[in-house]
Amino acid sequence: MKKEITIIGAGLVGSLLGIYMAKRGYKVNIFERRGDMRKERMSAGRSINLAMSDRGLLALEKVGLADEIKKIAIPMHGRYIHNMDGSTAFQPYGKEGQFINSVSRGTLNMKLMDLAEAHGVQLHFNHKCGAIDWTNNQVTFEISATEVYEHRAGIIFGADGAFSAARLQHQLQHDKFNYQQYYIDCGYKELAIPPTASGDFAMEVNALHIWPRKDYMLIALPNLDKTFTCTLFFPFEGEASFAKLTTEDAVKDFFAKTFPDAVSLMPDYVHEFFHNPTSSLVTVKCFPWIREDKFALIGDAAHAIVPFFGQGMNCGFEDCRILDELMDQYGDDWHAVLAQYQALRKPDGDAIADLAINNFTEMRDKTADPKFLLQKKIEARLHDKYPDKWIPAYSQVTFSPHIRYSEALRRGQQQEAIMQKVMQLPDIESKWDSEEVERMVVGEL
Amino acid sequence: MKKEITIIGAGLVGSLLGIYMAKRGYKVNIFERRGDMRKERMSAGRSINLAMSDRGLLALEKVGLADEIKKIAIPMHGRYIHNMDGSTAFQPYGKEGQFINSVSRGTLNMKLMDLAEAHGVQLHFNHKCGAIDWTNNQVTFEISATEVYEHRAGIIFGADGAFSAARLQHQLQHDKFNYQQYYIDCGYKELAIPPTASGDFAMEVNALHIWPRKDYMLIALPNLDKTFTCTLFFPFEGEASFAKLTTEDAVKDFFAKTFPDAVSLMPDYVHEFFHNPTSSLVTVKCFPWIREDKFALIGDAAHAIVPFFGQGMNCGFEDCRILDELMDQYGDDWHAVLAQYQALRKPDGDAIADLAINNFTEMRDKTADPKFLLQKKIEARLHDKYPDKWIPAYSQVTFSPHIRYSEALRRGQQQEAIMQKVMQLPDIESKWDSEEVERMVVGEL
Repeated sequence: MKKEITIIGAGLVGSLLGIYMAKRGYKVNIFERRGDMRKERMSAGRSINLAMSDRGLLALEKVGLADEIKKIAIPMHGRYIHNMDGSTAFQPYGKEGQFINSVSRGTLNMKLMDLAEAHGVQLHFNHKCGAIDWTNNQVTFEISATEVYEHRAGIIFGADGAFSAARLQHQLQHDKFNYQQYYIDCGYKELAIPPTASGDFAMEVNALHIWPRKDYMLIALPNLDKTFTCTLFFPFEGEASFAKLTTEDAVKDFFAKTFPDAVSLMPDYVHEFFHNPTSSLVTVKCFPWIREDKFALIGDAAHAIVPFFGQGMNCGFEDCRILDELMDQYGDDWHAVLAQYQALRKPDGDAIADLAINNFTEMRDKTADPKFLLQKKIEARLHDKYPDKWIPAYSQVTFSPHIRYSEALRRGQQQEAIMQKVMQLPDIESKWDSEEVERMVVGEL
Repeated sequence: MKKEITIIGAGLVGSLLGIYMAKRGYKVNIFERRGDMRKERMSAGRSINLAMSDRGLLALEKVGLADEIKKIAIPMHGRYIHNMDGSTAFQPYGKEGQFINSVSRGTLNMKLMDLAEAHGVQLHFNHKCGAIDWTNNQVTFEISATEVYEHRAGIIFGADGAFSAARLQHQLQHDKFNYQQYYIDCGYKELAIPPTASGDFAMEVNALHIWPRKDYMLIALPNLDKTFTCTLFFPFEGEASFAKLTTEDAVKDFFAKTFPDAVSLMPDYVHEFFHNPTSSLVTVKCFPWIREDKFALIGDAAHAIVPFFGQGMNCGFEDCRILDELMDQYGDDWHAVLAQYQALRKPDGDAIADLAINNFTEMRDKTADPKFLLQKKIEARLHDKYPDKWIPAYSQVTFSPHIRYSEALRRGQQQEAIMQKVMQLPDIESKWDSEEVERMVVGEL
């Protein structure tokens, strides 16, 4: 008989994993700390947009959800840069026809929950993971201050996010547990751009808007209701920081100087600045992810990353897809499945964590640098002429779901070293598309 | 009035810190989880030797203990290498007259406790740090299963080692706490070499003995009672590992093949192998180390490192010396003292953590490599001719207490890059002491 599957966390990854397992004939129980978001109002101001790209879509295809999600997604074909001087520029993400998708986190999560239930998955809300007894495979959930439920689990998955309670139980009861949590110096705050008076999008809709300002940035993603959700990534401390902007005047002054073209589009930003929460951004790496044939961490619980590559959800969905493929290979041999899952996914989780940190510098600083834009242009040309040999790092991560993150990191570093040399050529501005440059690159590959 | 000083942990660093503070006129209370080691027998088999070098001695000089410790220390002038084929080699640590010191951890700790009490420090044993209430500066100590003591603290120092309870309280109550714990794949086990039948040291006494075997190693440090304490650093899992050596025959077989000349000196090693504990080796990095003017982590509690550079205690003692020097500068302005302490010591703690990890590879693998020995010879020659410009990394860390660890790491990496080029010269074996090599190095500096 197939074992029961206990999933802790009914977020994006927990719900998708439940569907995968139910389709394989497992009895699945998902326990969620919060109430049912389909019945209750979500708290506002925290990461309501996702950038879904090919890895996420590939994982959804396998459960037949990709087409439905595409219908509620807004394609973003590139970065729309808003410079300090009011000028703008558009930088395509990939080749013609390649794009990422702005998707509402809430809508996606609710669709996944519905589909999970349609496949027979049992969802239990307001169940907070307390203790896990590994010997007896027993998970204790707190239902209220006085009420607990003891669940006899088959295989346990911790899919409960960056601050995973399941991981904490695993860690506290594990000898030699490697663990790292690293907060970057910036936090984020969400602001809103409503539709225009005539009811239209206030800016170009099919783009991810960036106001790169070196040490910080504002970004905006489009929503189906013709609003944009803006996110300010901003230092906690220092010259320009959340700590400094403590009065309405200070906020108005700063925004007027720093984001002049955005201010006119955000009628409520001062109120939002003081009422929306300031959230922090953490990277979590840990090891091991599994316990024998009993337990595995998945998604953010295994590898929380910063959002600057738009890969958090994509990576978590890929965890589910890879796990599913391993079950094609190893069937119900959970020892083998989990061991292989960890062996494959740990280096990829580490790699996308590092890539995501690096991309913050790229987004907030380099996208405003003409030299960087020229480099991107050269790389795009190389990609056109040598589509298999030269794939820009961004495209490897975003549009090449069969290249592993760890491979994308390695190849990206190799290509960056070559581009460093290329960019130092005298007169590179005038001969960027010359045969000389092309020969040099091909010679180095 | 001066604030009271509460120190959690009466180990090496806590005791030394207590002396420093008492000498400045502070009322000091030290709370120790264990009983008084001066009255109770210590548990055997865990890191009973220390390699005291110039940083540790400098910190002891300031409290007048250096001379007394030198009397009970055994100078080790270099590495005494035992190769697989039975051949041996001696590699000096520094210049003529430079050496590190084998010191008994227990003896040193007891002397520090005695001196602390002589300075009026109150030592409280069997007090286990439970909760810390930061708002009211109150520390709760568990004395027994039913009895607690609530201590009203002035300034609180967490000096309670790699698995610090004080740090855990700090972490649990701190937003955005950066934390990393990393276990290496090797553990360690202590074995003993008794004196010879005639009552003498069984090997050369003034050296640190190493049996480098690539993925693992055995080392031995001399003790005053003419014994050596051996430590086997060995993988937990894999081909040759603790997991594989589960029978007496397997252990005998392995040692006879791998450490033939050591086996004959260790009559009890098989018994010890199965009865002494296998300990793990962790690196801990965290941030912040301090809370306003109330609290600071110090020693292993702030920066636990692996033992391969012999710097754990030296670094903790240096923490105390730097803190003391900052009080010369800032007096009782604890806000300034702690902020500067953290700003200075965090990068140095990170640096020695990384240096210590790197030195494992050097000790277990490179010390048996003729090419590496040649490189050491070239570097020693450069150091002789340019004593200020070229100081080998090992000497910077060990014999140059006024070079910061972070500076030693930086300069060491720079020198290593130069030496990589030097070692690739054709015929370097024959022209290692030529003017050509010298000119090349000087040109690169």
